[in-house]
Amino acid sequence: MQYRKRFAALALAIAFIAAPVFAQSVERAKYVFVFIGDGMSMAQVSAAEVYARSMAGTSPGFVKLGFTQFPAQGLTTTYDSTSIITDSASAGTAIATGNKTASGVINMDPGKTIRFKTIAEYAKEAGMRVGIVSNVSLDHATPAAFYAKVPSRGDIYDICVQLAASGFDYFGGGGLSQPKGKLGDQPDAVEMARRAGYTVVTSAAAFRALKPVAGQKVLAMNETLQDSSSMPYEIDREEGDLSLADYVAKGIELLFNPKGFFFMVESGKIDWACHANDAAASIGDTLAFDRAIAKAMEFQKKYPKDTLIIVTGDHETGGMSIGFAGTKYSTAFGRIALQKGSYVQFDSQVIAGYKDGRTIADANLADILPEIKRFFGIDYAALSQAEQEMIQRSFIRTMKGEVERAAQESVYLMYGGYEPLTVTLTHIANQAAGIGWTTYSHTGIPVPTYALGRSQALFDGYYDNTEIFTKLAAVMGIKLPAAVKK
Amino acid sequence: MQYRKRFAALALAIAFIAAPVFAQSVERAKYVFVFIGDGMSMAQVSAAEVYARSMAGTSPGFVKLGFTQFPAQGLTTTYDSTSIITDSASAGTAIATGNKTASGVINMDPGKTIRFKTIAEYAKEAGMRVGIVSNVSLDHATPAAFYAKVPSRGDIYDICVQLAASGFDYFGGGGLSQPKGKLGDQPDAVEMARRAGYTVVTSAAAFRALKPVAGQKVLAMNETLQDSSSMPYEIDREEGDLSLADYVAKGIELLFNPKGFFFMVESGKIDWACHANDAAASIGDTLAFDRAIAKAMEFQKKYPKDTLIIVTGDHETGGMSIGFAGTKYSTAFGRIALQKGSYVQFDSQVIAGYKDGRTIADANLADILPEIKRFFGIDYAALSQAEQEMIQRSFIRTMKGEVERAAQESVYLMYGGYEPLTVTLTHIANQAAGIGWTTYSHTGIPVPTYALGRSQALFDGYYDNTEIFTKLAAVMGIKLPAAVKK
Repeated sequence: MQYRKRFAALALAIAFIAAPVFAQSVERAKYVFVFIGDGMSMAQVSAAEVYARSMAGTSPGFVKLGFTQFPAQGLTTTYDSTSIITDSASAGTAIATGNKTASGVINMDPGKTIRFKTIAEYAKEAGMRVGIVSNVSLDHATPAAFYAKVPSRGDIYDICVQLAASGFDYFGGGGLSQPKGKLGDQPDAVEMARRAGYTVVTSAAAFRALKPVAGQKVLAMNETLQDSSSMPYEIDREEGDLSLADYVAKGIELLFNPKGFFFMVESGKIDWACHANDAAASIGDTLAFDRAIAKAMEFQKKYPKDTLIIVTGDHETGGMSIGFAGTKYSTAFGRIALQKGSYVQFDSQVIAGYKDGRTIADANLADILPEIKRFFGIDYAALSQAEQEMIQRSFIRTMKGEVERAAQESVYLMYGGYEPLTVTLTHIANQAAGIGWTTYSHTGIPVPTYALGRSQALFDGYYDNTEIFTKLAAVMGIKLPAAVKK
Repeated sequence: MQYRKRFAALALAIAFIAAPVFAQSVERAKYVFVFIGDGMSMAQVSAAEVYARSMAGTSPGFVKLGFTQFPAQGLTTTYDSTSIITDSASAGTAIATGNKTASGVINMDPGKTIRFKTIAEYAKEAGMRVGIVSNVSLDHATPAAFYAKVPSRGDIYDICVQLAASGFDYFGGGGLSQPKGKLGDQPDAVEMARRAGYTVVTSAAAFRALKPVAGQKVLAMNETLQDSSSMPYEIDREEGDLSLADYVAKGIELLFNPKGFFFMVESGKIDWACHANDAAASIGDTLAFDRAIAKAMEFQKKYPKDTLIIVTGDHETGGMSIGFAGTKYSTAFGRIALQKGSYVQFDSQVIAGYKDGRTIADANLADILPEIKRFFGIDYAALSQAEQEMIQRSFIRTMKGEVERAAQESVYLMYGGYEPLTVTLTHIANQAAGIGWTTYSHTGIPVPTYALGRSQALFDGYYDNTEIFTKLAAVMGIKLPAAVKK
């Protein structure tokens, strides 16, 4: 093996072209949107596009989403100071502040002593209004990275308190997961927000009735919440429930003002779906994300000289791929449409009900096969023997309650800490469609970044996620202290 | 599930922005390089960059390759008329002619009646010189897509005959795999090339001695050939053997002339390594590809107003990912450097020798463990029980000669038709480094395309592989018949 010897030659070849970050002229934008698809990289976007095509016609192809047609597109590295594979806390810190930090840390250095100022705080200081929307809980890592500074993303109550004290103009989407602390014994952060002047909205009707009022600050938490105080997966959303697009449209209405705004919108459950290796839920949320972004695009059409929209991912999740060993060169994305809801819905609607009051001694796989057919479109009798055995084994584990993530490695490799039967069914359904996964965690693959509007060309090329901050600051005319400039 | 209902909304959101392909001014280039990394998408490039960083320092990061720093970068869809997952024949046809066709077809329509003219043929007609280099056999699908037209990539002898008749100026790299036909009973295509005026070179010394001569045509086939008449993997290349970079440098020397040249260079074994799920071999060839591209970059520095270099992949192979379930958020790319050669080398140097004259009755895994340690850096005793059992099972299969690709599906999923022990060892080694795979075939994930030089900005954005042809034709000033224009 001659790698090391040849590495010297490589070192000569690299850095051959200097990257003149701001060779392009920077034109200021006063309305700035940052859309973050959590866990969304090329595979998640492509899966949505291939799925859309499979619904629209028979010949292979991609139906391009709105944001993938943005004129400027780049590729963005996402590693943090701990690992090639970032988490959402350090990735959010990089995007929001331009600093690499350790996995799990929000807006502090790896040593957890220095606190970083976020792009949203700079915007607020400059007189812009600030909006933060996420369909996961508003105290989750990605939204928190725009307003909070904590040594650990697990310090959720501290994050809630900092939200209430942020002075930002609009929070919307999911709820707060620990507004009274881990044990529920702390002063209510929602109450703190009220006292700080926030109008707190928790019903769809009240949300729809919101109108712009001078000096108004809004904390809008979705009426319907699913796992961990998040909005439901798009695939599970009931008619009449608010969508991510509703939160964006309302945000634009409330934030619009002559001094401009900074508006961060996260689609957080693409990540959660991919952790669980549930392609149908990931695709549903990616398509819904595109519809949310379309609201910003409508705004940009009205104010093209003042608006910049960027769309990025904070990292890839799942090692998702459009290609599985068993299906070789074939795909069958139409099969994704057979799935009636997310893995969370199957756990709560089907498995929880079946387990209720039953022990392994009373359990019979045959009982649940009609539900498996109805929910996933999986016909047990038509499966290979190997697949049937996978389902049998996972059914027993599920009935025995063996869900712990800390299980032995060979079990973890099969189920990743998820309900064994459910993850086995999403694996079988995904693999039949031609979708493979390599992990239940994040990966280190770069993400695409898309830009439309003012100074969009800054976002072409291949750059690190910390540069998203630098580029945004330039477009927003923010003067950075020398230490931050790098 | 409300997908279909909501799909109508999606249809309104898409195609929101028209893509004005040639809004940018097109400036002509007379020296045009097209580098194709077969099977190379984001994961292959990133793995090489993460590996390079792991060799250079301890903190996580990417050492950017030369070509990933090109100023223009796009994302390219690769599906063909048969499948989201293309093969190299139809992908080569798309890049070389701008036409989608069926998997396996080279430069003909899916009905196999219409023949397409290639960008290289247009270049030749326009008086430019043409060079074709590949480190796999020169009659393989990707190089063939620039000079041959056959209903099936399996018509290898026909491809060889068409090579001899092409009139192109320089062929270099691998050998011909079937110059006398499948049975060896056809007239020798190498002899045909000689009669057509080609100087045929098969030694490194003769290759190094080649000098530009007016009207000279060269067919240079590497002195050392490995599997299927290909040049050796970079990781297996001996000191003094020619590299892909040598074939590019010589090509530039031979092709340079006032009327310009079109030069296609394929790195074909990134694909083969990824089919076999061998990350070390893929990374080695990706780094070597970068060094080959550096030769073109040196030329571009001398002739910046006349030169365009593009680098792309024809598809992704393997569903490669930087993230594996068992290693979660960790990677250990330093472990890649422990591998002493490609999977092919292990098959031929270690397994073939051990099997020679031995039956399963005489075989003992313990015999081969020192070689496994030496070659892969895998310490059997330190593995988990599950991994040890994987090795034990695969050793038995290998000793029984159970390599057939047509084996039952559960066996295929484990070994993909490769030598069971070898692919098990690359899996264990890759997974320990944090690299996962989803398939032994190609995938449908788009590929990045990079451009440097004249009209480089045409290659920004998100476009189909057929548009690479259209863009190249514009830059080369080729007048396309209306039917091809689309």
